[in-house]
Amino acid sequence: MKVLNHPDRQDIQLSSVLYALSDPIRLYLVDVIHKTGERRCGDIAVPVVKSTLSHHIRTLRESGVVHVRVQGTQRFCTIRTGDLDARFPGLLASILEAYQNSGEAEQLLATT
Amino acid sequence: MKVLNHPDRQDIQLSSVLYALSDPIRLYLVDVIHKTGERRCGDIAVPVVKSTLSHHIRTLRESGVVHVRVQGTQRFCTIRTGDLDARFPGLLASILEAYQNSGEAEQLLATT
Repeated sequence: MKVLNHPDRQDIQLSSVLYALSDPIRLYLVDVIHKTGERRCGDIAVPVVKSTLSHHIRTLRESGVVHVRVQGTQRFCTIRTGDLDARFPGLLASILEAYQNSGEAEQLLATT
Repeated sequence: MKVLNHPDRQDIQLSSVLYALSDPIRLYLVDVIHKTGERRCGDIAVPVVKSTLSHHIRTLRESGVVHVRVQGTQRFCTIRTGDLDARFPGLLASILEAYQNSGEAEQLLATT
């Protein structure tokens, strides 16, 4: 089984987390997965091709924002809320609140 | 006098702000300027050459994080806290608090 690298909690860097969240597609993915809980990574409807989606998920995983669980040929994503809240208390909630109020999700879906 | 473009408050995008803050040097600049108030842009001691510093300031300005005032041959930076707080209440404070607790500033200065 392929083992995916995830940074340990203490190695999660603020600048990497902010970079991971600095893309409209990735912000949308994190918002959706945060709301719904574990999701099959490929199941989230976003206006990008599959390889681009995989790249975004990888960026989120490598920064420590998302945990990817491999099950057979499928991959399931969760947000590492426990680790993020321990490293940067209140940060994720603050960013997601800003996102939900920003209208950027609606803008993104309007381009679909 | 050269006029620098700054996005209007309502045009400040969350993803652009997060991108501007996703670099260790830019996070450090914002933290310093936020603490001290208006600063001559070139006066902040960071381990990069002048042209790189100018590029970082430009990224911060174009995203709406920093306002740059031109006075003769000098440029002065302030953080657009009023605009950022209006657009994304609590976001900047949350990111700067995470930054101050992260030890990333000390890591950056240790490389100087």
